[in-house]
Amino acid sequence: MSLVVQKYGGTSIRDIERIKAVAHRCLATQQKGHDLVVVLSAMAGETNRLLELAGQITNSPEPREMDMLISTGEQVSISLLAITIQALGGKARSFLADQMGMRTDNLYGKARILSVDDKKVRKALEDGEVVIVAGFQGVDAEGNITTLGRGGSDTTAVALAAALHADVCEIYTDVDGIYTTDPSLCADAKKIKRIAYEEMMELASLGAKILQVRSVEFGMNYGVPIHVRSSFEEREGSWVIPEEVSMEKVRVRGVACDLKAAKITIRGVPDIPGVAAKIFRPLAGAGINVDVIIQNVSEGGVTDVTFTVSREDLELARTISQEIVETMAAQGTRVDERVAKVSLVGVGMRSHAGVAAQAFDALAEANINIQMISTSEIKISCVVAEDDAPLAVQVLHGAFHLGSAEAAK
Amino acid sequence: MSLVVQKYGGTSIRDIERIKAVAHRCLATQQKGHDLVVVLSAMAGETNRLLELAGQITNSPEPREMDMLISTGEQVSISLLAITIQALGGKARSFLADQMGMRTDNLYGKARILSVDDKKVRKALEDGEVVIVAGFQGVDAEGNITTLGRGGSDTTAVALAAALHADVCEIYTDVDGIYTTDPSLCADAKKIKRIAYEEMMELASLGAKILQVRSVEFGMNYGVPIHVRSSFEEREGSWVIPEEVSMEKVRVRGVACDLKAAKITIRGVPDIPGVAAKIFRPLAGAGINVDVIIQNVSEGGVTDVTFTVSREDLELARTISQEIVETMAAQGTRVDERVAKVSLVGVGMRSHAGVAAQAFDALAEANINIQMISTSEIKISCVVAEDDAPLAVQVLHGAFHLGSAEAAK
Repeated sequence: MSLVVQKYGGTSIRDIERIKAVAHRCLATQQKGHDLVVVLSAMAGETNRLLELAGQITNSPEPREMDMLISTGEQVSISLLAITIQALGGKARSFLADQMGMRTDNLYGKARILSVDDKKVRKALEDGEVVIVAGFQGVDAEGNITTLGRGGSDTTAVALAAALHADVCEIYTDVDGIYTTDPSLCADAKKIKRIAYEEMMELASLGAKILQVRSVEFGMNYGVPIHVRSSFEEREGSWVIPEEVSMEKVRVRGVACDLKAAKITIRGVPDIPGVAAKIFRPLAGAGINVDVIIQNVSEGGVTDVTFTVSREDLELARTISQEIVETMAAQGTRVDERVAKVSLVGVGMRSHAGVAAQAFDALAEANINIQMISTSEIKISCVVAEDDAPLAVQVLHGAFHLGSAEAAK
Repeated sequence: MSLVVQKYGGTSIRDIERIKAVAHRCLATQQKGHDLVVVLSAMAGETNRLLELAGQITNSPEPREMDMLISTGEQVSISLLAITIQALGGKARSFLADQMGMRTDNLYGKARILSVDDKKVRKALEDGEVVIVAGFQGVDAEGNITTLGRGGSDTTAVALAAALHADVCEIYTDVDGIYTTDPSLCADAKKIKRIAYEEMMELASLGAKILQVRSVEFGMNYGVPIHVRSSFEEREGSWVIPEEVSMEKVRVRGVACDLKAAKITIRGVPDIPGVAAKIFRPLAGAGINVDVIIQNVSEGGVTDVTFTVSREDLELARTISQEIVETMAAQGTRVDERVAKVSLVGVGMRSHAGVAAQAFDALAEANINIQMISTSEIKISCVVAEDDAPLAVQVLHGAFHLGSAEAAK
């Protein structure tokens, strides 16, 4: 007898037929003797339908009202699943964020979970109910509805699993696990059986869309095993778990690829102290996440500063960069809208030297120009031209034998 | 400077264009110096879309989960209107039932309002915000979402107007007021300028769909003037207000027609004390509202008992009636699925004798057979064949000169 938290994404409940399939899986889990908490996203397409309605009004709606609007998607899902389980003869009860004490701060649209009050959920579990929780949403101290950002239902699920000391948090999605790289870019990508939280956090923040970064962080901080698997089959998926000694044997766990990057260079910046702050403070103030940064060697008292941003932030970043050029009397900006970031991730890098050199060699052999490099203890990122990215992924995947059976362990 | 509550029905906010029109009306009201609270229904079609989703699962969903499901419709409306008003430069804030303390009992699907906590609303009004409230929904003592039944947004609006001591509660709908009868049945129906709460309650419970009965009851109990008007024009509509002396001069205020009635006769019932209870207790227990009841003169120790029910309750009522026949050793049932109830309503009936006789004469002259009669202090109802109903409405409307300018006062 254990406590299981299951999270189903939008494609797993896209219509009533699929909701019925999920209901059957819930009842089967319960019949095996487990207590079950289910976290749901909105039905596929629903959140976009609501965004589109708001988009007919304005491009900059007030965030509190947007959260009020889009949180309805999950409310529809949870009631429909409860009705389905009940119609099949089971016991179920749906909970909104405020009904189960999912408290967050009040950063609408990207709120962070502060605390979970598990009393009502535990009571319902004692009564033998399948507890069905609206993902993605929270409630602030004033009782306003907040949302946790795209993919936030993953975080709801792992946070709940942590609060309830669940034995596992199962994330059901439309793929059957976490792969050594994106299979659409590299045909011999392999499903990974076990991956460390830190590796998964890097992969998630580097472009792998399978789990929200915050959810992995919660899992790591509270030691919740996360099992990513398909809602369309019974096979095991991938486990995200604490780092194990054996994991260090593998130098590279996976290759991530972010195809949606853009690069901005501010040219001819006076090379004096405080310059970096003058450039990056206004960008941060506008909510723009700057990723890789390089500064060229100074020539004649001026230097070039180059950085990458997400392509959706590009227009805003371009405008701010031009203002920066004027303020600093720099020479101008240069923008490349079509770059990609290819990254290697693995806790084994800590104990294996030469991973970076081997990666650069492999890319050079394939005639791929590396525009920017950024490294951390367990990752190496290279910015390349967007058109080179698929080949770069394949080359790196091959160079570290990620298509082998060993890599999938 | 006064406090105005405005309620907009689903057709008034059926798409973003109409929501924009409502937003302009809200801002115009505010610019006249009024404090404004707006209560919204779901966008036209939305509640049916949600009901249809649940209908794909089961015909008898658990009521708690249905309320969780369908209350999302109003949540979408209020956030979209708030976003629209803000985009136009105004200040607005949306409130769900639990956020503004709209407490009800826990009769899901037909909950009754117990109390309204107006603190948050008053605070928002002081801040100059248009307060936008989700109609139709409430929250019980446990924090579960409840709904008030079809048309419940009217009741939300009037209850809020009562709690806030509003100067007026304006009900915006797709017709421009309350008519002496249904204009689709009678071409010379006239819009009524002023109608007493009691008259409106009778008309609403007799088939006029323009206001939920409970909302009129709230208005009467708390003295809230209700102004029913069109969201598509500026003209005054109809006022529902306390009875005035001048109203008694008008013998009949309006003619209501319920085309969705059905008639059941239980034949050969033993004519002994306690019979009526044996018949109507099981029907009430099944949640069936029995309307007009007549019992024939006893012949040979047995009698016939006839009653009408809403046509949507007919199948259930038929089944229960057959069980009653067996329990009581009665002779059988007879069902007429196609009857209608035509009713005259007016506080003037209290002081004018002969209204009933004049009505029966008029129907007789038109060769319309009256199957059942039911009267109260301010109404006379006749059950007739469904096919006779339109003519009956016209005949009665004419007999009491309801097409005259005098009737519309």
